[in-house]
Amino acid sequence: MESLKKFKDKLHDIIFETNTPAGKLFDILLIVTILGNSILIILESVDVIKNSYGIVLNLFGWIFLVIFSIEYILRIFVVKNKLAYVFSFFGLIDLFAVLPVYFGILFPQLRFLVIIRVFRLLRLFSIFKMGRYIEESSHLIRALKSSKPKILVFLFTILFIIIIVGSMMYIIEGPENGFTNIPESMYWAIVTISTVGYGDISPQTSVGKLLSSLLMITAYGIIAVPTGIISHELAITSKNDEIAKTCPDCQTRPHSKDDVYCSKCGCLLDS
Amino acid sequence: MESLKKFKDKLHDIIFETNTPAGKLFDILLIVTILGNSILIILESVDVIKNSYGIVLNLFGWIFLVIFSIEYILRIFVVKNKLAYVFSFFGLIDLFAVLPVYFGILFPQLRFLVIIRVFRLLRLFSIFKMGRYIEESSHLIRALKSSKPKILVFLFTILFIIIIVGSMMYIIEGPENGFTNIPESMYWAIVTISTVGYGDISPQTSVGKLLSSLLMITAYGIIAVPTGIISHELAITSKNDEIAKTCPDCQTRPHSKDDVYCSKCGCLLDS
Amino acid sequence: MESLKKFKDKLHDIIFETNTPAGKLFDILLIVTILGNSILIILESVDVIKNSYGIVLNLFGWIFLVIFSIEYILRIFVVKNKLAYVFSFFGLIDLFAVLPVYFGILFPQLRFLVIIRVFRLLRLFSIFKMGRYIEESSHLIRALKSSKPKILVFLFTILFIIIIVGSMMYIIEGPENGFTNIPESMYWAIVTISTVGYGDISPQTSVGKLLSSLLMITAYGIIAVPTGIISHELAITSKNDEIAKTCPDCQTRPHSKDDVYCSKCGCLLDS
Amino acid sequence: MESLKKFKDKLHDIIFETNTPAGKLFDILLIVTILGNSILIILESVDVIKNSYGIVLNLFGWIFLVIFSIEYILRIFVVKNKLAYVFSFFGLIDLFAVLPVYFGILFPQLRFLVIIRVFRLLRLFSIFKMGRYIEESSHLIRALKSSKPKILVFLFTILFIIIIVGSMMYIIEGPENGFTNIPESMYWAIVTISTVGYGDISPQTSVGKLLSSLLMITAYGIIAVPTGIISHELAITSKNDEIAKTCPDCQTRPHSKDDVYCSKCGCLLDS
Repeated sequence: MESLKKFKDKLHDIIFETNTPAGKLFDILLIVTILGNSILIILESVDVIKNSYGIVLNLFGWIFLVIFSIEYILRIFVVKNKLAYVFSFFGLIDLFAVLPVYFGILFPQLRFLVIIRVFRLLRLFSIFKMGRYIEESSHLIRALKSSKPKILVFLFTILFIIIIVGSMMYIIEGPENGFTNIPESMYWAIVTISTVGYGDISPQTSVGKLLSSLLMITAYGIIAVPTGIISHELAITSKNDEIAKTCPDCQTRPHSKDDVYCSKCGCLLDS
Repeated sequence: MESLKKFKDKLHDIIFETNTPAGKLFDILLIVTILGNSILIILESVDVIKNSYGIVLNLFGWIFLVIFSIEYILRIFVVKNKLAYVFSFFGLIDLFAVLPVYFGILFPQLRFLVIIRVFRLLRLFSIFKMGRYIEESSHLIRALKSSKPKILVFLFTILFIIIIVGSMMYIIEGPENGFTNIPESMYWAIVTISTVGYGDISPQTSVGKLLSSLLMITAYGIIAVPTGIISHELAITSKNDEIAKTCPDCQTRPHSKDDVYCSKCGCLLDS
Repeated sequence: MESLKKFKDKLHDIIFETNTPAGKLFDILLIVTILGNSILIILESVDVIKNSYGIVLNLFGWIFLVIFSIEYILRIFVVKNKLAYVFSFFGLIDLFAVLPVYFGILFPQLRFLVIIRVFRLLRLFSIFKMGRYIEESSHLIRALKSSKPKILVFLFTILFIIIIVGSMMYIIEGPENGFTNIPESMYWAIVTISTVGYGDISPQTSVGKLLSSLLMITAYGIIAVPTGIISHELAITSKNDEIAKTCPDCQTRPHSKDDVYCSKCGCLLDS
Repeated sequence: MESLKKFKDKLHDIIFETNTPAGKLFDILLIVTILGNSILIILESVDVIKNSYGIVLNLFGWIFLVIFSIEYILRIFVVKNKLAYVFSFFGLIDLFAVLPVYFGILFPQLRFLVIIRVFRLLRLFSIFKMGRYIEESSHLIRALKSSKPKILVFLFTILFIIIIVGSMMYIIEGPENGFTNIPESMYWAIVTISTVGYGDISPQTSVGKLLSSLLMITAYGIIAVPTGIISHELAITSKNDEIAKTCPDCQTRPHSKDDVYCSKCGCLLDS
């Protein structure tokens, strides 16, 4: 019983930790199998490749299924709070990497669901979390987080414009010009304001073209807003990084390297 | 008479103020009905949904009509300067939330005007004005305001390019290639310079393609200008927020509003 | 002879200067006629309008022709160096505002050239130069000027990518998929890299789609460069504006408000 | 033997160095021939031009072939480590400027490969490396380099979104709506997220349009990230350029490279 616990602990370290050689090896193997699995799913969807190399693809499909199934069982086996893991985000991701295949065997008409396995790519985020990449992007993520309220206001405004312009275009152009209903009109407004412009729906009347022109020129100014926000936030976060000292007394606020006295309580700062 | 005035005052507080529990409840109910009304209008425009759930949609339509009518009458009832309200921006918005329906009953062939009711969404702005969201965006709005002259110059330049290039393309391509007249050519220029690019009109001749290429590469540089302006203005507005106090003793360095002691010499700052 | 010279001088002031009431009035009249003329040309190109209001448009056309002809003759009459004016940029612009019409009367088959008159809009730049708008944009123009070498490097790189990718796509896709020759391929590359994306030409083969995808993702990064440059230059120009003091001794370099001694020659700066 | 070595050294200086008059002349001639060659290749691909001026184009083709062949042989002749040159990047570029023509003579059906010669344009980079342009862009390149990790994280996230959204759209829309397989779906996702939007493939179902709308709005925020990164990095690199000296006396404030005296206390700065 003791040895089982020890074995379980060791397995837990290998699977969930990354600072032991075995843990690192496990992570690398996991990355390779997940990427291999994703490439397999992408290739399987191409008819020409499937017809020529169907057997090879099938073989790899079974191999990945076995590996992921064993991995899933092991993960459940080693975690303490099993239920918490199973219903956690990554627990579900791990489950959906194998479930659709078994499901597809039972109900062959639902075979197309096997594509869901590609979401296992998201597992990479939990692996890289401990790597150095996340550190590089932490700066970016912090900038994005602190500009969240501004971006929400921005998105709210965009949604507003989309509903108003969408409704107006539905009245102006109408179903005979491709604006069959307001949701369709709103889809067109999004395609236009994001400057994608497929051209599957486009204004035909003069008034519609005028309103579209106004929307496009507005889009010009609007696209500038999130860029401005993010580049500004990046500048601020990086500035705060430079500010290194904290007051030994009140500890609340960071001070810049040049500061000698705390600006809150007036006591001396250490170098 | 006294009690009526009191009742009127209380009603005014509920409808126009937001800091009492009743006022907050009223605002929340208003937001819910306005959003519900907008969703209703959007859904009504979809044939499939209208055919299946026509009765439910109609029912909700009548409910919202009754609520908005009562609300409109109450608003007129409680405000002092009734005429000023009726012809104010939000007064008209409130009116157009109910008028098109009554209008549609009298003239069934103008029923499509009921979509105008969706503009009631703009009412949300008057509600959120007192909320915290507007505070988050005040920074943004100030940046946009102070960059107004620059943006006007920018828009003027854009308009210029559009007229000049539009006229040139009309000569080069002509009606046989879809550039039927100068306004149409200008519409094409806007679609191109905003990088939307529907493809409903596109140059066919070599010279036209060359000119378009120049316009597109110019667009590249042009799209950079408003972004640069806004991110720059954001930096300035935020900087001005920080700089508020100066040390009465050493006077060298600006301090933020939150600072109590000078970070250079440790002496007290004035409020 | 004296009085003629005086009259000439006064006329010169009215036409070319802007700080007298008469000069201002002349400028405003010029702006109105130029804008009116432009709107006329735009409207004339629309068949529906031309057929209905042809007589009115024609009338205004003659009025503008007479006004611009007189203005042109007066300008030649009052300037000292007549040849320099005639062959200057604005001299040619003024000429082309009337010439195409006379030309069109002589050679009716070249009537479409009358659209050239729209370029007279460029005259507005010479009028606004003395107005306040140019001041607002001077900041912007200075930022653009000082980032010229960076933007040139950027344009050179873009041109490079366009030629290389254009040539590759011509080999990969070939004339059968719309890439009829390298210039056409380059046009497609510009349409793609500027994210306009008309869709008149689009890759059909797998290799072509892969290369296009790479180009589009590159375009992502590339569009960021001019924006970054301009917003950075704007920050610098505005910073230099803040720096107000100049050394009374060497006068070469601007100093910031906080500086006490000149950083070049070490002498004291005035406040 | 001595004189041959001397001649070789001199030739090496002319071909590889740029600071002698002969070396400069050689560079200019090389730039002219490379640009001429590129224009020739572009013109050759246009049928109309080829049919009319085929003989002239052919003549120039042979001239450039002879020049580039001689140049290539001379380069091999003068460099010490011949093998290193031949297999270096620019060695291969120089080779591919002539090889495809000889290849095309031997195998006429592979004649279309002569377009590869256009890659010789890349040689210009090795010439401009010593020019002043690279200096102007060094700032830009440094900013791009230092933001490399952030851009990699960004590209990784984009790739992620493309695979996930591509797979989802393949399930939702399916081959009947143009999403024939996952790579095709991913191509569509790239066309959409980069806001190019050809419109050759576009969503047809309601769910597909909803997912596309989300992708487009996300693209909005995403396009802001690289811009923000680059403009921020530009600000940092330029700031680091300024900060070079510190006053030996008061040590408080960084001085630019051009400063001779401290702007705070007036004492001399070290070089």
